[in-house]
Amino acid sequence: MQDYTRFTHFNVSSPSEYVAHVEINRPQKLNAFFEDMWLELGKVFDKLSHDPDVRAVVFSGAGDRAFTSGLDVQAASEGGALSGSKGDGARAATSMRRHIDEFQECISRIEKCEKPIVCVLHGISYGLAIDMSCCADVRICSKDTKLAVKEVDIGIAADIGTLSRLPKVVSNISWVKDISLSARIFGADEALAAGFVSHVYGSKAESIAAAISWASLVASKSPVAVQGTKELINHARDHSVADSLRYTAIWNSAMLQTEDVKSALLSGMKKTKPRFAKL
Amino acid sequence: MQDYTRFTHFNVSSPSEYVAHVEINRPQKLNAFFEDMWLELGKVFDKLSHDPDVRAVVFSGAGDRAFTSGLDVQAASEGGALSGSKGDGARAATSMRRHIDEFQECISRIEKCEKPIVCVLHGISYGLAIDMSCCADVRICSKDTKLAVKEVDIGIAADIGTLSRLPKVVSNISWVKDISLSARIFGADEALAAGFVSHVYGSKAESIAAAISWASLVASKSPVAVQGTKELINHARDHSVADSLRYTAIWNSAMLQTEDVKSALLSGMKKTKPRFAKL
Amino acid sequence: MQDYTRFTHFNVSSPSEYVAHVEINRPQKLNAFFEDMWLELGKVFDKLSHDPDVRAVVFSGAGDRAFTSGLDVQAASEGGALSGSKGDGARAATSMRRHIDEFQECISRIEKCEKPIVCVLHGISYGLAIDMSCCADVRICSKDTKLAVKEVDIGIAADIGTLSRLPKVVSNISWVKDISLSARIFGADEALAAGFVSHVYGSKAESIAAAISWASLVASKSPVAVQGTKELINHARDHSVADSLRYTAIWNSAMLQTEDVKSALLSGMKKTKPRFAKL
Amino acid sequence: MQDYTRFTHFNVSSPSEYVAHVEINRPQKLNAFFEDMWLELGKVFDKLSHDPDVRAVVFSGAGDRAFTSGLDVQAASEGGALSGSKGDGARAATSMRRHIDEFQECISRIEKCEKPIVCVLHGISYGLAIDMSCCADVRICSKDTKLAVKEVDIGIAADIGTLSRLPKVVSNISWVKDISLSARIFGADEALAAGFVSHVYGSKAESIAAAISWASLVASKSPVAVQGTKELINHARDHSVADSLRYTAIWNSAMLQTEDVKSALLSGMKKTKPRFAKL
Amino acid sequence: MQDYTRFTHFNVSSPSEYVAHVEINRPQKLNAFFEDMWLELGKVFDKLSHDPDVRAVVFSGAGDRAFTSGLDVQAASEGGALSGSKGDGARAATSMRRHIDEFQECISRIEKCEKPIVCVLHGISYGLAIDMSCCADVRICSKDTKLAVKEVDIGIAADIGTLSRLPKVVSNISWVKDISLSARIFGADEALAAGFVSHVYGSKAESIAAAISWASLVASKSPVAVQGTKELINHARDHSVADSLRYTAIWNSAMLQTEDVKSALLSGMKKTKPRFAKL
Amino acid sequence: MQDYTRFTHFNVSSPSEYVAHVEINRPQKLNAFFEDMWLELGKVFDKLSHDPDVRAVVFSGAGDRAFTSGLDVQAASEGGALSGSKGDGARAATSMRRHIDEFQECISRIEKCEKPIVCVLHGISYGLAIDMSCCADVRICSKDTKLAVKEVDIGIAADIGTLSRLPKVVSNISWVKDISLSARIFGADEALAAGFVSHVYGSKAESIAAAISWASLVASKSPVAVQGTKELINHARDHSVADSLRYTAIWNSAMLQTEDVKSALLSGMKKTKPRFAKL
Repeated sequence: MQDYTRFTHFNVSSPSEYVAHVEINRPQKLNAFFEDMWLELGKVFDKLSHDPDVRAVVFSGAGDRAFTSGLDVQAASEGGALSGSKGDGARAATSMRRHIDEFQECISRIEKCEKPIVCVLHGISYGLAIDMSCCADVRICSKDTKLAVKEVDIGIAADIGTLSRLPKVVSNISWVKDISLSARIFGADEALAAGFVSHVYGSKAESIAAAISWASLVASKSPVAVQGTKELINHARDHSVADSLRYTAIWNSAMLQTEDVKSALLSGMKKTKPRFAKL
Repeated sequence: MQDYTRFTHFNVSSPSEYVAHVEINRPQKLNAFFEDMWLELGKVFDKLSHDPDVRAVVFSGAGDRAFTSGLDVQAASEGGALSGSKGDGARAATSMRRHIDEFQECISRIEKCEKPIVCVLHGISYGLAIDMSCCADVRICSKDTKLAVKEVDIGIAADIGTLSRLPKVVSNISWVKDISLSARIFGADEALAAGFVSHVYGSKAESIAAAISWASLVASKSPVAVQGTKELINHARDHSVADSLRYTAIWNSAMLQTEDVKSALLSGMKKTKPRFAKL
Repeated sequence: MQDYTRFTHFNVSSPSEYVAHVEINRPQKLNAFFEDMWLELGKVFDKLSHDPDVRAVVFSGAGDRAFTSGLDVQAASEGGALSGSKGDGARAATSMRRHIDEFQECISRIEKCEKPIVCVLHGISYGLAIDMSCCADVRICSKDTKLAVKEVDIGIAADIGTLSRLPKVVSNISWVKDISLSARIFGADEALAAGFVSHVYGSKAESIAAAISWASLVASKSPVAVQGTKELINHARDHSVADSLRYTAIWNSAMLQTEDVKSALLSGMKKTKPRFAKL
Repeated sequence: MQDYTRFTHFNVSSPSEYVAHVEINRPQKLNAFFEDMWLELGKVFDKLSHDPDVRAVVFSGAGDRAFTSGLDVQAASEGGALSGSKGDGARAATSMRRHIDEFQECISRIEKCEKPIVCVLHGISYGLAIDMSCCADVRICSKDTKLAVKEVDIGIAADIGTLSRLPKVVSNISWVKDISLSARIFGADEALAAGFVSHVYGSKAESIAAAISWASLVASKSPVAVQGTKELINHARDHSVADSLRYTAIWNSAMLQTEDVKSALLSGMKKTKPRFAKL
Repeated sequence: MQDYTRFTHFNVSSPSEYVAHVEINRPQKLNAFFEDMWLELGKVFDKLSHDPDVRAVVFSGAGDRAFTSGLDVQAASEGGALSGSKGDGARAATSMRRHIDEFQECISRIEKCEKPIVCVLHGISYGLAIDMSCCADVRICSKDTKLAVKEVDIGIAADIGTLSRLPKVVSNISWVKDISLSARIFGADEALAAGFVSHVYGSKAESIAAAISWASLVASKSPVAVQGTKELINHARDHSVADSLRYTAIWNSAMLQTEDVKSALLSGMKKTKPRFAKL
Repeated sequence: MQDYTRFTHFNVSSPSEYVAHVEINRPQKLNAFFEDMWLELGKVFDKLSHDPDVRAVVFSGAGDRAFTSGLDVQAASEGGALSGSKGDGARAATSMRRHIDEFQECISRIEKCEKPIVCVLHGISYGLAIDMSCCADVRICSKDTKLAVKEVDIGIAADIGTLSRLPKVVSNISWVKDISLSARIFGADEALAAGFVSHVYGSKAESIAAAISWASLVASKSPVAVQGTKELINHARDHSVADSLRYTAIWNSAMLQTEDVKSALLSGMKKTKPRFAKL
């Protein structure tokens, strides 16, 4: 794995071959985010996206109390997004739009990362926790997780991704609107029933272990096949089936020219573990 | 709340501050709809949409037997949609299209209402019950509810919204096609399992109480935040994530210039109930 | 029903009035597919689509062991899709794209068939089993079914439809990515919980019986209403609600000029079974 | 033709069989618009849309000096769109949005009118003149016409339709941006060269005569064919070719069941003038 | 070039290396189309699409009088599209829709042909002439060409592609609606001014010569580059710039792995004529 | 204006208040591009986009001979885009895709710049000249300009934007395909006739003067109005009219809260030159 030690707000380790583990590193403040953190977040996932030694990513918060409590509201009030703006209404709106654009762009880097990401929600997981986990591929959580689309309670509609992505990652729009409009806190079981997470584990430790295990499994497979699968499912979300089929055909017209097919077939027959070249 | 007494097919009351309750008012006929009713329905929800004293809406049927049994087929056969049309095939089709356009437009006013709507399904809830409840934001029902996409049984494909919206509000397309193609009646538990409703209560009375309680909670929050959240989730349904993020940024570039953020933050710190200006 | 005896890889029978049953007919090889089979598959469903004696279709595999184990990998390696291609990278890609286009087109014929299709998954149901069943309208399975999006295990991203359609037929995108990226085998209960199938039956025989029963029910209804319902739900998947409402209005402007409405209403009143003209 | 005398801001006459002529009727003020006028405009075109005695519409301004000079800026400053708004930034924006929505909706009624509209631009044709004429089907003008997308000069981006429709009715996007960003006045020849109008005539009188003549020609043809042609070209603008072809097939599946085809073919053979039933 | 002698309604010759010339072969009837002809047309262009000896196509009509006068109305009245249909309104519409679907599909094969097509319009070029030429890549014509979107004159809206494609191949929507609604005949100069054709030549012979010359030039270039260029421009028409850029990147990620780049660069330096492998 | 002296491949000057002039600065090599240059180009336009002292931009090439001859093919062959890639076909394609993504992203920054850009084409303007100028808002050129979509001549389909944007900035698709498929050189008059440029001037000097004059005019107007107009026209290109109208309403709901309207109206009345605050 490349060197990730220059990042200060995130711990990046490699718990298993081809697997990276990213932790939000501000546990003393419930991993609440201020501007420097989301700027760095984008850079972390950009680097992981092209790092040939990384084939799957686990994403969690440091410490036992929270994945993240969301935006650091105090910091935002003092000098950031919520600190008011200068000029007339149009100029204030322009400055606000540029700020939101940049913030959204950083969080979207999680989604744009070419490697599969399993997000482990645990403890307090409010606001930005939902925005960010909707960008991941697989969401799991521990039994003690408390989740909320909290934004309405500070007088705003969530604008960093939750309202754009949540209706597309879960099933039950009545439920999506219930939690988004009421800002109420819900637990792991409700998240599972609604399809927001696909597994619930007994504790944070068990969740992390399961995530690493899943990531290792995926990392053992052809990276050409895995990264293509991620890309094509994401593409499907925003396109018609006809467009999606066409894009798939073009994508695979190049990707099927990989040695991985031969390696995989041969290993399948010989019951050996295939090795795939870096990507 | 403004004056809604001029409406004859709908009762509109205010069970709680900033909450309106709309009842379909033809209980003696299972709240079946004829043309005058849907024309009036559109006007009711238009008025609620801009009424500054309304911040959330409960929608149900009057009486114990039905939310609505759907289209009043007899009325429709005698002089309405199903009474046949004049002229050659093209002219008959034109007249039919204009009729459907107008009918769809009235029902869509429920969706276009800027305030969150919780729809309480109860008793018989057939045909138009599904079209209308798909336009609401949150759907709940009582244990005794009987639901059906009934249109196939009168020889038509549902055309007032069910087939356009149902696949986007629930999860399980196999189930959507099962019930839409077979027109079979299903109950509250199946509706819950499929994600069509997000809660089932023991009786109509309990459901109404829960709906009012939810609506009151939502009505106590910043109307800028709440109405923005509704708008942005609805927008997300029909747009790509990229389009949706951009629209969200533009929307919030104006909406973040509200006093509500300050009020909400202050109340949060002081543990008091915030008061928000009308919208 | 028209004559389907010229097809060699598929058994087509009529277990009930207006119902066709299509069986994949290569049980000795777990119904694995080679090129001739998918070319013929397209023709079978094209014929069913316009056959006026068919109003609903049951789709399953012959034999007890498998719906289908998917692509016959050995055949594909020896002379087909996976056998490598000639020329430089661009020419190889062009030849591959044409091959995928044709393969996709054949499988999409299932979806384009104008009659409702209930797909019975049973036994081994891997790879192409998912691609094909996603094209059906209703999916049910027997308790012993083993499912997998297997493609990653042979070094490729699924390109015949699974990655384009699966995210649109089920609810839980976290689950969709879990199974698609890991290629793990899952069972009937998990398929039901995720909304991939809408019912699980005790055995293949019970599943087939239930499918025929459902198909017979649907086949007893107005074919104008039933086929319109299928078309409009499929259209909704790929269009905004506004586009979908408009298309529905145009569709029904012609379709409401059917005698079926009168027959259905009359039968409803007289409690008799309506008879509908062929379509 | 139905009775249009209740309209006060527009003269509606019938210069020829099946042809309506709508004139903006405020020549003493260069036909500048205030709120009552656009509200009435919507109603005029709604009525024309379904009036069976109207098959084509000519749209122009009364008097010799202007089609329209656009928004009556003084009226708008005193109590309308530009008069400022109350409440905090979010509440002011909400009130502004509702106002724009309503204004746009009125102007869009021109486009939604089912009958072909030929718009005659003449004299001063600024701002709203461009918004409205972009909603018409055919645009012609007299030699003396002065046109401008004037909005930038009063500090706003045009929001009633010009910026949404102009890039789709003309060819040269470099030119569209030139005139929209600079707000400069351009003449008839430049409008013709850019494809904004399709003919230039020597005077307003000649233009009106040509418009009536064109409208009469179109009104002499099958209204089923003519109104279908308008609808399908408008649909094509906003959809892919594949979507457009499908919509066309559905539309014509009903429309080809008209007697007009027989009448048209027969008249073609007999060299007589066909008569078509009302629509 | 492969063998095209089995086609009876079209002459296919090779006037130059890698160039095919397709002529509509019914000059005694002004090349008017009946059903067998459009079915065969689809097959001709399918074959050309994958024929490795064809790199560019010229498309014209046989004889001096017409490219094509369009649909053979007499044949259509006697047993085809315009001969009326059986059953109630819905059944007649279904049968009509299937007919239009098939007809559209045949004509669209011109567009789907992977090789560039230059269409030479000459003499009478009505109705289907416009539908077909809109599917070609480049349109040129001779001075004597008479064009018309003729369908309105037989009581129908054009449904085989003109109304879907014409607004996307020319600039001036006012002109598109003028000619489509009035069905008036227009000449070569007007076609050039509107951007419907890109060149006008003195005679049919000169036009054919120019077309062959253009096709030969294009056929002398890298077929990987040429066919990619066609595909990407067609894709751009129906997609946003963002989608189009992404599709382009995926397409070229395979196509840049061609030997043609090296050959082209080398020939450029050496001033020799490059030779490219078949595609 | 902020400090732009750190850029080495581009000269950035301010010929007039609020106007920036960007010159491609490699005249000795006909302003041909290598990788460092496009990376820097993105940064230049990012900076201009938010620089409050810039309200309009002129973009040209340094020297008399060329706007740009396009990609520096020799540099690209030696170590860049065309130098071949490592690994199997899939890995080579992945590396190529990442390279194209980055290149496209840099060029798209021209389009994303919030200020209007007038591009002056002059002398040799091949390949990348077309990609870049399609991102500008207004295109003008001098009489001596030689243009070409040159990519086909080096064996590739243009992939940095030309094929995605050119069909949307000009009118005549037949012409677009002619020049893109043949790679032929065309002159200023043809570019004007096709609508690719909106004015032709006698020399480069005259063109630059005209561009500065136009930019100064635009820079003298309300930046809120000007930048909104640019954004809304660009948005319209990729969206339906309905989507575009809605986005416009939301955009202007904030932007109309500017002091610029009052300043503009007042100056209009007083015939003075308005001054607008920075944006």
